[in-house]
Amino acid sequence: MIATKAYAAEKVSAPLAPFNFERRDVGAHDVQIEILYCGVCHSDIHQVRDEWGGSIFPMVPGHEIVGRIVKAGDHVTKFKVGDLAGIGCFVDSCRVCVNCKNNEEQYCLEGMTGTYNARERETNAPTYGGYSTHIVVDEHYTLKVSDKLPLAGVAPLLCAGITTYSPLRHVGVTKGHKVAVLGLGGLGHMAVKFAAAFGAEVTMLSGSPSKEADAKRLGAHKFALTSDKATMESLKGEFDFILNTVSAEHSYSTYLDLLKTNGTMIIVGIPSEPAKIPAFDLITQRKSILGSMIGGIKETQEMLDFCAEHNIVSDVEVIDINYINEAYERVLKSDVKYRFVIDINSLNK
Amino acid sequence: MIATKAYAAEKVSAPLAPFNFERRDVGAHDVQIEILYCGVCHSDIHQVRDEWGGSIFPMVPGHEIVGRIVKAGDHVTKFKVGDLAGIGCFVDSCRVCVNCKNNEEQYCLEGMTGTYNARERETNAPTYGGYSTHIVVDEHYTLKVSDKLPLAGVAPLLCAGITTYSPLRHVGVTKGHKVAVLGLGGLGHMAVKFAAAFGAEVTMLSGSPSKEADAKRLGAHKFALTSDKATMESLKGEFDFILNTVSAEHSYSTYLDLLKTNGTMIIVGIPSEPAKIPAFDLITQRKSILGSMIGGIKETQEMLDFCAEHNIVSDVEVIDINYINEAYERVLKSDVKYRFVIDINSLNK
Repeated sequence: MIATKAYAAEKVSAPLAPFNFERRDVGAHDVQIEILYCGVCHSDIHQVRDEWGGSIFPMVPGHEIVGRIVKAGDHVTKFKVGDLAGIGCFVDSCRVCVNCKNNEEQYCLEGMTGTYNARERETNAPTYGGYSTHIVVDEHYTLKVSDKLPLAGVAPLLCAGITTYSPLRHVGVTKGHKVAVLGLGGLGHMAVKFAAAFGAEVTMLSGSPSKEADAKRLGAHKFALTSDKATMESLKGEFDFILNTVSAEHSYSTYLDLLKTNGTMIIVGIPSEPAKIPAFDLITQRKSILGSMIGGIKETQEMLDFCAEHNIVSDVEVIDINYINEAYERVLKSDVKYRFVIDINSLNK
Repeated sequence: MIATKAYAAEKVSAPLAPFNFERRDVGAHDVQIEILYCGVCHSDIHQVRDEWGGSIFPMVPGHEIVGRIVKAGDHVTKFKVGDLAGIGCFVDSCRVCVNCKNNEEQYCLEGMTGTYNARERETNAPTYGGYSTHIVVDEHYTLKVSDKLPLAGVAPLLCAGITTYSPLRHVGVTKGHKVAVLGLGGLGHMAVKFAAAFGAEVTMLSGSPSKEADAKRLGAHKFALTSDKATMESLKGEFDFILNTVSAEHSYSTYLDLLKTNGTMIIVGIPSEPAKIPAFDLITQRKSILGSMIGGIKETQEMLDFCAEHNIVSDVEVIDINYINEAYERVLKSDVKYRFVIDINSLNK
C-alpha cells in the first residue's frame, strides 16, 4: 500500500483539512503518479456539500490531475517512469458496453467510476481524488501530457478543457461558424480558446462590461453585453451555436432567440432547477438543445495533443493546499481568473 | 373577384357559422382551386380562441386543403385546369431570405404568410383558409396531389403529415433505428405510419391500453403503456428518437430517460407552459431536444409523392361543415380517429 498525504472533507460541508490514507499497490496495468498540480472544479464544492446527493466521506476531491509517473505495472505499455501524465474525471468504467467500446467511457452504461466520490469497481473501496500526493490508476484511464506546456495550466484541461472541447468537436465547429459562449468562468474561458482555435467567429455573451477586455485577450472576436437590449435585439438569429456554461438559474429562452435556423445550444452546466424551455422557441426555427458531459479517454488525449500543438492552456491562479477553503469561497463568488490550481508540493511542506 | 362560401368565426371563440366573402382574382402566377376536402387541425381551435394571440376576425380556418384546379394564371407552368392540388399551412413567404432560397419557406426569416389568420404580403388583406369553396394561391405554394389516393385522407397530409415526415427525414430515421411516438392523435398516427415506412422499429407510447390494437394496425411494432412502471423501467435507454406530439402539459423528463446515448427527442407540440428540462437529463448521455415545424414546399411535395407511392393517407372521419362546432368539442376531448375532414361540397347544400 502507498502512504498518501491529502486534504479531505471529513463530513458533509466540513472545511478541507489534512488527511492521510493509503493508495492500493500498483497492479500489472496500473501506473503510480506523483501528483504535481490539481485543478479546483466547481463540482468539487458541489460534492463536498453533497448538493448532488450520495456523497461519500471522508472525501478527497480533485479530478484535474497532472503529475509524473513514478512506478509502472508489469503490463503497462503506454508509460514509463519519468513520463508526465494526467487523470481526468474518471478512473474506470465497465469496458464492455457499447459506449466504452466506442471510446466514450464518460457515457458508460454501467456508470463511469469517478476519480473521487465513487467506489472502485472490484473492491468497492472509495476513490480519492487529486488533492493528494499520489494516485494509482489503470493506464487506460491515464493521459499522456506534453512537456511543452506549463503544467499548472494543463491540469484544468482534464475537466474544463475536455468538457468544452468535446461538444464543439461533436457538432463540428469550424471556420465559417458563428459561436457564442455564455459565461466566462473555468469552462467559458476554455470554450473561447477552443472555438477560436477551430476557426469560428467567437462572441462572448456576458452581463459584465468588465469582462470585455479579458474575453478578447482569450480570443473572442466580439463581446456582447447581455443587459443591453439593443445589442441583444441586433443579435437575434446570429449564431450557429451557443455554448452555455452557466450553472446558475437563468433564462434559456433569452439566448435561444440568438440562434439561427437549425442552431444548437450546447449545455454543459447543471443548474439545480430544471431549464424552462418554451417549445415555441425550438419549433419555429428548428433549433435544438444538446447536453454534453466531459469526453472519452481517446478524445481527451486528442484534446491534450491539440493544446500542445496550439499552445493552449487554462488561465490559472496557483495556490498552496492550505488556501483551499478560501479558494472555495472565491469560486462561489466567481472570483478567479479562471481556475484555481493547487501546487501539490505544498502538501509536503 | 371570386364569390366564396365559407364558415367563419365572427369574433374570438364564436361558434363557426356561414360566411360569404370574395377571393382575389387569379393573377398570372395563381391557381384557383375548387376545394373538395379540408382537414380540421387542433391549431384551428387555438386560433379561433385566440390562444396564441394576434388572431384576426372574422376567421375562416383550415390549412389542410385538397381540391381541383378550376383556373390557372397565364404564367402558371406546374398546373392545368382539372389537376388535383393541395394547400398546406402557408400561401406565401418573402422568397429571398436564406431559408426561402433553401426551400424551407416555413422558416422564412420575415415570417411565412399563413393560409388563414395572416395578411397577404402585398395587399395586407386577411387570408382566409380552407373551410371555404375556393382558394386562390400562387402556384409556387401549391402542391401536386396524386389521384391514386382517397382525397379525404390526403387533406391532413398537408399539415399533420408534413409536420411528422419532415423531422423524421431531417434526423435520418431509417432501418435499424428504434423510434418511439408519444401521443396517438392526428400527428402521432401519421408519425407511426412514416417511421414504419422509413424502416424503423416503431413503439407507440401511450397512457391508454385501449390504443394498443389501433397503434399496431397503424404500423407500430410495439406498444408501451406509459403508466406501467416496469415497462417504463425496461425501456430506459431504448430509443434513438422519440417523436413527441403532445401539446398538453407533460413530463419531458420521463421520456428523455427512454433515449439512448446521443438520442434525440423531436418536439412538434406546443404546450402553453414551457417544458421543464433538467439539464442533467440531457448532459449525462449527450441527449438532445429538437423542435420542428411543418416543412417546406419542396419537402411537402416529396412527402405527398412518397405517400402516393407507399399508399399512405391519414385515417379520417369525414364530416359536413355544419358539424364543425361539435367536431371542435370532440377534438378537444381527443375523440377522433384521427382527423376530422370536412367534405366541402356540404358548403353548397
